[in-house]
Amino acid sequence: MPQGKPAVVPKDGLTTRQRRNRPLLAVHTGEMKGKSTAAFGMALRAWNQGWSIGVFQFVKSAKWRVGEEAAFKALGKLHDDTGQGGPVEWHKMGEGWSWSRKQGSEEDHAANAQEGWAEIKRRLAAETHDFYVLDEFSYLLKWGWLEADDVVSALASRPGHQHVVITGRYAPPELIEAADLVAEMTKVKHPMDAGQKGQRGIEW
Amino acid sequence: MPQGKPAVVPKDGLTTRQRRNRPLLAVHTGEMKGKSTAAFGMALRAWNQGWSIGVFQFVKSAKWRVGEEAAFKALGKLHDDTGQGGPVEWHKMGEGWSWSRKQGSEEDHAANAQEGWAEIKRRLAAETHDFYVLDEFSYLLKWGWLEADDVVSALASRPGHQHVVITGRYAPPELIEAADLVAEMTKVKHPMDAGQKGQRGIEW
Repeated sequence: MPQGKPAVVPKDGLTTRQRRNRPLLAVHTGEMKGKSTAAFGMALRAWNQGWSIGVFQFVKSAKWRVGEEAAFKALGKLHDDTGQGGPVEWHKMGEGWSWSRKQGSEEDHAANAQEGWAEIKRRLAAETHDFYVLDEFSYLLKWGWLEADDVVSALASRPGHQHVVITGRYAPPELIEAADLVAEMTKVKHPMDAGQKGQRGIEW
Repeated sequence: MPQGKPAVVPKDGLTTRQRRNRPLLAVHTGEMKGKSTAAFGMALRAWNQGWSIGVFQFVKSAKWRVGEEAAFKALGKLHDDTGQGGPVEWHKMGEGWSWSRKQGSEEDHAANAQEGWAEIKRRLAAETHDFYVLDEFSYLLKWGWLEADDVVSALASRPGHQHVVITGRYAPPELIEAADLVAEMTKVKHPMDAGQKGQRGIEW
């Protein structure tokens, strides 16, 4: 996609530079895979800028995204060792949040999710990271574990210049409304429809 | 996305393992960004499997995807230095193909594109890589620089176990038909519509 001109220039009193540098809230939703994959692709660009990256995976299984996790941990280590790129923190609800002494379990899935969001709110307020991936976060709203108003208000009032990408199906209207960028991944054709099973290196 | 069961089990005489391990031809098309980003996200998983990755960028400007390029070159170097992950080759039409003595120029854009495809065909025949990203490749078909029949036939007859991801708008019907996986990225909302300009770390 070309680094093109905007369709309209808003009368918001901002300079081009100010407008260029506004922090982004992106939502990747829709039924097709590619939502998280594209978020991690964006995180590659953020890493290359030397930004601090915080990934928060709100998925049940600790086995998901192992390929992306390994690659980003390698990139984060490269930063720590050589200074190239940015630092990377990768947190997973599925194996219990690393900052928490509690072990994640099936029973307190909602409580674990709420604890994850509380930590993200603290980090946003403290401007801990430059680029956040909240992976499969939309389900927490869909399932009523978090209030959309609380989420949107914390995101809208985040200080500084923190980019946030939220992925997952069923993004609620309040989140779509609050987002600067919303992409919907749509299935045209998928190998599982033709009976193919998931495979190593492709699905995980 | 869960590593779920397929919707149907085809009567193709293949075992589950054979079916699981079939090489994938994926096409990411549609008007929205995320097509290439998601392809590079997939390549993270491929890297983590230790696969050889070949990226071929059919874009005019050598400045595109600099963030992804820097990150993947770092990952490729990590492989070369430590053995972690897989090797990475990254080739760009925009600055003249690295295997070619010719310099790319605006005038012979079609010839450069055809030279790139010829090299990819040679590599597919030689099973050079395990995972190919043909970035913005669909335009070559759209603009008539390559014949869809030639492309589809070379892809369909590729030997071994080589995965190929093709990105770009206007993927022609022949390519959609030949693909195992087709994802369409659709715009719901984009900051440029609201007058925001592209920004560092987000668009590149």
